Amino acid sequence: MSLNPADDRLAALLPEHVLRPVTPAYLEDARGREPGQAGLVAAPRTTEEVSLIVRACAQARVGIVTRGGGTGLVGGQIMWDGPAPLVLSLERMTALRGIWAQENVLVAEAGMTLQAVRDAAAGQGRLFPLSLASQGSAAIGGCLSTNAGGVTALRYGSARALCLGVEAVLPDGSIVHDLKRLRKDNTGYDLRDLLIGAEGTLGVITAASLRIVLPPPEVGTAMLEVPDPGAALSLLALAEARMAGCVTAFELIAGQGLAFLSEVLPEIRQPLPGAGWSVLIEVGLPLGTPADGALEGLLEEAMEQGLVCDGVIAQSGTQAAEFWTLREHLPEANRRIGSIVSHDISLPLSEISRFIQDAGQVARAMEEDIRINCFGHLGDGNLHYNMFPAKGRTRAEYGDLGQRLAERIHGMVIERGGSFSAEHGVGRVKVQDLQRWGDPARLAAMRAIKTALDPLGIMNPGAVLPR
Amino acid sequence: MSLNPADDRLAALLPEHVLRPVTPAYLEDARGREPGQAGLVAAPRTTEEVSLIVRACAQARVGIVTRGGGTGLVGGQIMWDGPAPLVLSLERMTALRGIWAQENVLVAEAGMTLQAVRDAAAGQGRLFPLSLASQGSAAIGGCLSTNAGGVTALRYGSARALCLGVEAVLPDGSIVHDLKRLRKDNTGYDLRDLLIGAEGTLGVITAASLRIVLPPPEVGTAMLEVPDPGAALSLLALAEARMAGCVTAFELIAGQGLAFLSEVLPEIRQPLPGAGWSVLIEVGLPLGTPADGALEGLLEEAMEQGLVCDGVIAQSGTQAAEFWTLREHLPEANRRIGSIVSHDISLPLSEISRFIQDAGQVARAMEEDIRINCFGHLGDGNLHYNMFPAKGRTRAEYGDLGQRLAERIHGMVIERGGSFSAEHGVGRVKVQDLQRWGDPARLAAMRAIKTALDPLGIMNPGAVLPR
Repeated sequence: MSLNPADDRLAALLPEHVLRPVTPAYLEDARGREPGQAGLVAAPRTTEEVSLIVRACAQARVGIVTRGGGTGLVGGQIMWDGPAPLVLSLERMTALRGIWAQENVLVAEAGMTLQAVRDAAAGQGRLFPLSLASQGSAAIGGCLSTNAGGVTALRYGSARALCLGVEAVLPDGSIVHDLKRLRKDNTGYDLRDLLIGAEGTLGVITAASLRIVLPPPEVGTAMLEVPDPGAALSLLALAEARMAGCVTAFELIAGQGLAFLSEVLPEIRQPLPGAGWSVLIEVGLPLGTPADGALEGLLEEAMEQGLVCDGVIAQSGTQAAEFWTLREHLPEANRRIGSIVSHDISLPLSEISRFIQDAGQVARAMEEDIRINCFGHLGDGNLHYNMFPAKGRTRAEYGDLGQRLAERIHGMVIERGGSFSAEHGVGRVKVQDLQRWGDPARLAAMRAIKTALDPLGIMNPGAVLPR
Repeated sequence: MSLNPADDRLAALLPEHVLRPVTPAYLEDARGREPGQAGLVAAPRTTEEVSLIVRACAQARVGIVTRGGGTGLVGGQIMWDGPAPLVLSLERMTALRGIWAQENVLVAEAGMTLQAVRDAAAGQGRLFPLSLASQGSAAIGGCLSTNAGGVTALRYGSARALCLGVEAVLPDGSIVHDLKRLRKDNTGYDLRDLLIGAEGTLGVITAASLRIVLPPPEVGTAMLEVPDPGAALSLLALAEARMAGCVTAFELIAGQGLAFLSEVLPEIRQPLPGAGWSVLIEVGLPLGTPADGALEGLLEEAMEQGLVCDGVIAQSGTQAAEFWTLREHLPEANRRIGSIVSHDISLPLSEISRFIQDAGQVARAMEEDIRINCFGHLGDGNLHYNMFPAKGRTRAEYGDLGQRLAERIHGMVIERGGSFSAEHGVGRVKVQDLQRWGDPARLAAMRAIKTALDPLGIMNPGAVLPR
């Protein structure tokens, strides 16, 4: 392969064994967007090698795009324009550095998949609660860099809340050693939380100290049909009042989502076929509180209050797994149908019900002939509000509708105190949204921090903040 | 009062009504240290006035020491040397800006006391879980700026974990508007968590959006005597395995602490007088799990395993309050006895038991004739490890022992992967500790961030980082 002069200079600074062929797999994302570019791909085995690579890139003035599992949804791991970067793949840094079951802590290298972290915890009778549809390939480093959310954030928080400390390489190649196994440490600025969610623009997280938990002794799962999203929120409030923080997940599912499943994944079993709106609830309770009884009590009270019209409480682990299979295949069904536009939004809980009504009206006023699938982590106020072509039509037929819808929907979200990126991050896809909707003083502070830590602008150039 | 020329220039830039007389109350801390200094005291009523004051201080090159309730324990609110600062008191910014019970969110101005925030939540049937001995005077802004911990961090986290967003004035006077009522928002760098714990060195938090929760339906409290701290940790693990995250507090109490209470606060009732080591446990459980039964079940299993020798389960709210009164008076008893040296340390849980043994041996090898009171938030690995004169002796008789002990104890803590400031912060008292024990790359990044956001060095000069 012939390299451009900058890459040539850079390659000369690196030990040959860290370089990898530039194959398409390093340049893609999970949304099937246009592939990115890379001058070189490096796969270090150690934090010291990451440091060496970062120093070399600084010297050669070559940008670095760090890559975990490549499952990011907003292009944080794909660089489409500007000088080709070095792609820093963490695929070889997959060691479990240690697990302290008694302390409920493990230390994982950034390239471990989320599933591998979960398995390591399970091997010691523990649970690493972060749970995402892409956990089989998503790397824990990427989960942290994007502060991934998922289905258990209601109870356990997003990735940030599960991280006790990080080891990271800063843009000057220095290594931050902060893999503490401590619940409390108030010794200066919170660099950990700054690196978490910075999407690789302030440094490379190479390892993390993570909280694990004892799995709740009693776990119960139910699918409940609700009259509307407002009732779902009242049901959540009722569940939380009864359950003392033991509601693990509370997912909203739209009738359109079930219809999509019937259309493209008919093999997925649906416990409440034809439900207009439903929720998937999981509770994890103390010893002596059988989950069935707790869910039955909830269901009874909720039905009396008109919050639930129908419901199925899982009678076995297998049935519970079936409910989760349904939930986890909603994004896959969406992908097969092919959206015109997707949104990853959050709203104050009391704004959600009216937002769903208003957004539907606004969207249909712009284009009557679409399908809307609104689902997501209702307990967190986090909706995936996605629009699709009518049956038999393709998204190409809708021209720039997606762009115009996104503009309106994001505007409505901001007006209501919401966020245009609840859990996916900014990446490169939402850089302009952040510039447009972000608080100016906060943006200026972000820019000052970026310039202070990465004066050469080599870390994930053009992600989060414009180049 | 005659002002020095800088203060004179500064006063001319400020509206007269924000200025307050410089009285001793603005210059003190809860530990009774040497009072600090102030050229001016300003008490703004609005965020815009805070901004105006910060801009004026920037123009006049006068440092700003922000002050909430003044209860900080490490001198973050007291400036002893360098040019006299303006003390920015938040005493007039005490509004509850709003409470959204359905969303479990409230927005408080920074000068509200923690107790007032707790009361506002209670008024809507909610709980703001942060709980500290000083909550009657500690301001919520100070709790956030120092990332205060307290007795419920085990379950609900420290102050940081309870904050959804902040409004803040940055060192250039710009106002960050980020009072979001959102559980998830991944739109750029985590400026909120950077300001939290920065102890007023990066800006002034003027208001915060806070998580409140539904109080658990069933609450139980017990005092249990344990053979040693190792047994206490095994008891905690057992409780957590049974309780699915419903252990709210788990406090270790040393026999020496009970002896101090008997000595100086004999009116405090002791349910387990003479216990060598004991723990105060509080659980908050779902409906249908009576707390008494849950605690009895725990006690039974723990006794079988030899983890508990004796115990009292509170039979009423009054009795539970008595247990807490005991716990909350431990610091007051310490104060009356008068420590030679105090430590606010955290350790990995599996290091704690041996550390307590080793530290006791090391200390007694340095000086046999002392009393050690080791207590604190065992569930968080956070100990207050304090040394006192023998009965009948004064701390003055021990010369520089306190300093030498601190040196050794901190060294032992660092060796074991612990922290020399678990929940109190760095302030001015631990600046040198941070320089000595902090990770060099992390310290360099902290300095870069400080310089980027506060190039004039006006925000709390000399706190956290040396001037």
